[in-house]
This record gives sequence, C-alpha cells and structure tokens, in this order.
Amino acid sequence: MRNILIIGGGGMVGQKLAWALSNNPLKRGDRVTLLDLSLPQNGAPVAEEVRATITNPAVLTRLAAKRPEVIFNLAAIVSGEAETDFDLGWQVNMEAFRALLEVFRKEVETSGGDYKPKIIFTSSIAVFGAPFPEKIGDDFLHAPQTSYGAQKAICELLLSDYIRKGFFGGVSIRLPTICVRPGKPNKAASSFFSGIIREPLNGQEAILPVSDQTRHWHASPRSAAGFLRHAATLDQDVYGGRPALSMPGVSCTVAEQIEALRDVAGEDAVRLIRHQPDPSIEAIVKNWPQDFAPERASALGFAAEKSFSEIVKVYLEEDMP
Amino acid sequence: MRNILIIGGGGMVGQKLAWALSNNPLKRGDRVTLLDLSLPQNGAPVAEEVRATITNPAVLTRLAAKRPEVIFNLAAIVSGEAETDFDLGWQVNMEAFRALLEVFRKEVETSGGDYKPKIIFTSSIAVFGAPFPEKIGDDFLHAPQTSYGAQKAICELLLSDYIRKGFFGGVSIRLPTICVRPGKPNKAASSFFSGIIREPLNGQEAILPVSDQTRHWHASPRSAAGFLRHAATLDQDVYGGRPALSMPGVSCTVAEQIEALRDVAGEDAVRLIRHQPDPSIEAIVKNWPQDFAPERASALGFAAEKSFSEIVKVYLEEDMP
Repeated sequence: MRNILIIGGGGMVGQKLAWALSNNPLKRGDRVTLLDLSLPQNGAPVAEEVRATITNPAVLTRLAAKRPEVIFNLAAIVSGEAETDFDLGWQVNMEAFRALLEVFRKEVETSGGDYKPKIIFTSSIAVFGAPFPEKIGDDFLHAPQTSYGAQKAICELLLSDYIRKGFFGGVSIRLPTICVRPGKPNKAASSFFSGIIREPLNGQEAILPVSDQTRHWHASPRSAAGFLRHAATLDQDVYGGRPALSMPGVSCTVAEQIEALRDVAGEDAVRLIRHQPDPSIEAIVKNWPQDFAPERASALGFAAEKSFSEIVKVYLEEDMP
Repeated sequence: MRNILIIGGGGMVGQKLAWALSNNPLKRGDRVTLLDLSLPQNGAPVAEEVRATITNPAVLTRLAAKRPEVIFNLAAIVSGEAETDFDLGWQVNMEAFRALLEVFRKEVETSGGDYKPKIIFTSSIAVFGAPFPEKIGDDFLHAPQTSYGAQKAICELLLSDYIRKGFFGGVSIRLPTICVRPGKPNKAASSFFSGIIREPLNGQEAILPVSDQTRHWHASPRSAAGFLRHAATLDQDVYGGRPALSMPGVSCTVAEQIEALRDVAGEDAVRLIRHQPDPSIEAIVKNWPQDFAPERASALGFAAEKSFSEIVKVYLEEDMP
C-alpha cells in the first residue's frame, strides 16, 4: 500500500487527477489523500480528505510523516489574483512551496535513506514571456510577464535544485491553458478561453475580452490529469538533469475556437459570445505564448488533443452539466 | 547629493566598484555607503562603511530610510560553499535578497511616489547549465546545475517582477568568471581560473584541478566594476521588459590562459602550475558555460577585454602586489 498526496486536490484539475488515479491506479491499493482549503461534495473517491491551507506547516508536517510516495502540488493563487494581490501570490505560490520542500526534505533526511518521494509540481506556460519565437522550444528562456509566471518559474528552479541534490525525484509539468474548464468563471486571466465555449453550450452569454485573432495554447482537463499521472510513472534519469517540461497542446486562435463551437452547437450558440474588450486582460494575454514545439515531452510519451474540436468533445463527454 | 549603497561592498568586486565610483562618479557629490560583514582597511574611499550581515533586516531598513538612488547587491555565498552548505546558500543568496526587495518596496510605497531606486543585482553565468549550444544566446534557458546558479536565477526572476510592477528600476548583470582575482584563493569552484595565473606571477605554486582543455568565459575585475557602473547609467526602457543581461567576456581554454601567462612571465612561471585533478571541482565546472553571444549587452555599450592576454595585463597594472 502506497500513499499519494494531492495538494490542491479540491480544484478542478486536482479532482480530475483524483478520478484518474481512482479509475486507473498507479499501483493496486494506492491510498490517495487530498489537501485543499475546500473540497467538493460528491468529489472523486479517495482515502482521506484534509481541509487546510498549504501555508500551514503543521498540516504539511503531519502529511509528510505518512511518507507519501508521490506528491502532486496543484495549489496556487491564479494568475489574475496573483497580479492584483502581490503579497498573497508570493506567499502561496512561492513561499508555501519552498516550505513544503523543506518539510519533505526533513522527512527524507530523518528516514536515513528509506524515503525518497517524487514531487510533481504543476507549472504553467506563464513562465514564458514575449517576445517569442514562432514556436517555443525546450531550451527557450523563462522571462515571465506576470507575478504568477515568475512564481511558477521560481518553483521549477527550487524543485530542480532539491532533485539535483538527491532529496526527491520528480518533475515540473508546464500545463497549457486548460480548456474547456467546467463550472464557473474564475479569477484567472485565461478564464474566458473556456467561458466562450462553455457558456454558449449551456445557453448562456459569454464575454470575449480580447480579439478573436488571439492565438493561444490549450489542452483539456483530461489531458492535464493525464500529464500528471504519466509523470508519476517515469524514471528520474529520463529528464537528463532538467526536470521541467512544457506539455503538448493545441495552438489555435479564438476564431478557430469559435469555429469548433459552431460545428458542434451552431450559429445560435456563437451568437451568445459578446466581444467586449478588457484592456487589463488584453495586457496580460498579449504576453502569453501562442505555440510550442514540446519535443522532450512528446518523446517521453506525454500526449494531448490534436485539434480544438477534440477539446470541445472532451467537455461534451465528461463535463457538460 | 545622492546616496549610493553597495551591499557586499567589502568584497573584491565591491571594492573595485567603489574605487570606480570614486574615480568617476555617476554624479558629482555622490555619497557611497558600503555594507558588508567585513570591510578592508585602506579600502576604497567612501562616505560610510557599515559592518553587518545582509540577513539583518533592521540594518537594511535603516539603510533604506536614507533612500539610496542606486543599490548594488554583490553579497553572496560563493558557488563552492553554497554547494556544501545548502541551507546557508539559500538563506543568504535567495531569502536575504527577497527580504531586501521587501524592505525597499516598503520605503518606495511609503514615499508616495517620491522614491524609486535602481537595484542592480550581480548575477552569474552559473544560471546556465549544460547541455549548451556552441554560444549561449540571449534567449537561452536557465537550467542551473548548482544551488548557487539556482539562487542567482531566482533572484533575477524576483527582481524582474518587482521592476515590472513598478517598485524599482534596475537590472540583473550576469558576470563572467572574474579573472584574474587578486588576493587569496576563495571557496568558489572557479577559484583556480585565477590561481593558475596569479600564483605563478607571484612565484608560488598553483593547483590546476581540471583538464587544460576546459573552456570558460572570463572578464577582469575592472570590467566587472565597469559593467555595474554602466548599468547604473542606463534608462529602464532599454531592457524591453527583460532586465537581465549576460555580459561580454573572453572565451578561452585553460591551455590558452597558460599561453598568455607564458608570454608575460615565461616558462619558469608556467612550471609552477601543477595538474592535480579534483573530481568535485571537475563535476561542477563541466556543467559551466564556455562561450556566449551577448548581443543585447554589447548593443547597450557593455564592454570587456578582447583576449586573455588583456585580462592578464589588467592584473599586472592594477592588482599585482
């Protein structure tokens, strides 16, 4: 029996991952614990749920003492909120992760060699900032243009150094923008990428705050959970000293997203999208990546959808209310 | 009258910078303060010397209240020591810098718009890790292979985000390995690059712990001080949202360094170099950069020596006892 810990397990991707590990366990008898500020009722079936903030070291220390073999960290203040609340963003997205690494390092050191977990950190393509090459390759500079991106880039560097020193195994997984997110809009500046598909499919109006020529990089929630689960199955030496990977995805414009919506739901759905430019969202999104050549991840077996239509289909199959 | 603060002003490059600012002030009447754990007797002439650790926030708060217009941060635990003392490295090289940014941010915020200093952070080519392209360009990935490099890369990201948010101006300056360092060997893994020139010139034996085919990237102490001084003269908009630059330097092998020594001091000096491989130094140095194409810095007027012979000449002119 192994313990697996999902920090931020109450969020949308955390729940998808918990379902994925329930339907398709890494090993038979795996015991999954979720930690989050709040956890959904009727959520994924897991062994234990802990409601607490990750900024509470006593909780982390107690969970580390159970020696989970894999720790997924998905907890974060989202990009829009990290931009408006500078202190909160740094505290949760950077300092709490550093504290987490220290808590687990202490457990590793007291184990005398018995315990060496894998820490799988959910990073983001927000670690990259404009100007970009046509496709962002695996050795392109991290020059984030948001605090959220800077915090994710720093956590990657922290985790890589703790891994290099032999305290843990693990990897940072840079998720594309996850689309179509089920549920309600959130404070992420990227929220509208899902809203313009989800709301019209549910017969509701959606606001498009940017130009429909905006190109961006997407993958479904199912793919996101798949990336994280797959990362837990890989040997450490596959990363060649660079345990941080940009994930595969679909590069498309908002106009192409809308075409995929039209194919599925017709003109009536498309008419529910209202273009209402928001300069603060435009200012963030214009510095975001548009396309990638994620060769390392593809070679290691990470895979996403091939078109935005496939991404819409995943929403219809899994998440449409 | 303006205040200028040099943190780590007692070190070799800090002293060179203080001398450069004394001989060639940024503005007439500049008032330079040095902060360091220890400061040399008969050092550079400055207005004030403060002996304290940068991990003491009370000292930083007092110095911030004087509202220095330019803050140079050169304080660091060197690479070899940050590798052997993991906790000390993170504390001094990362956490103390974050605390420094917070202290100055508070001063900026209480000034109500009157105060916006430039913070010039001394970074290092150790932010880069192997494998490398033939020449490292300005948009190459930071994948450090030492804790020191990870700490420097993180401080660059921190400073860039505080600058982006409008708290400060400034830039991170990635120094080449500084050669020929005057004085004694230090705990930096790069210490031998200077030792094999300096010790023979002074009639003493020097240990070469790596192969003479090891290629590396060098600039003189005079150039290092010049880079930092030049950075203080530039407008913020020249950085295009990426306030971090790799500096110019000289790419050469240890064998080429030794040839430059032979030209100046003859075969007797070269015979004082003893090759004694050190696997721990070799392991660090093999992951270090060998050559750069620092186009952004060159276009902004940063300049270094053109050959290793010039670097040796600077030592003979300025630092030979």
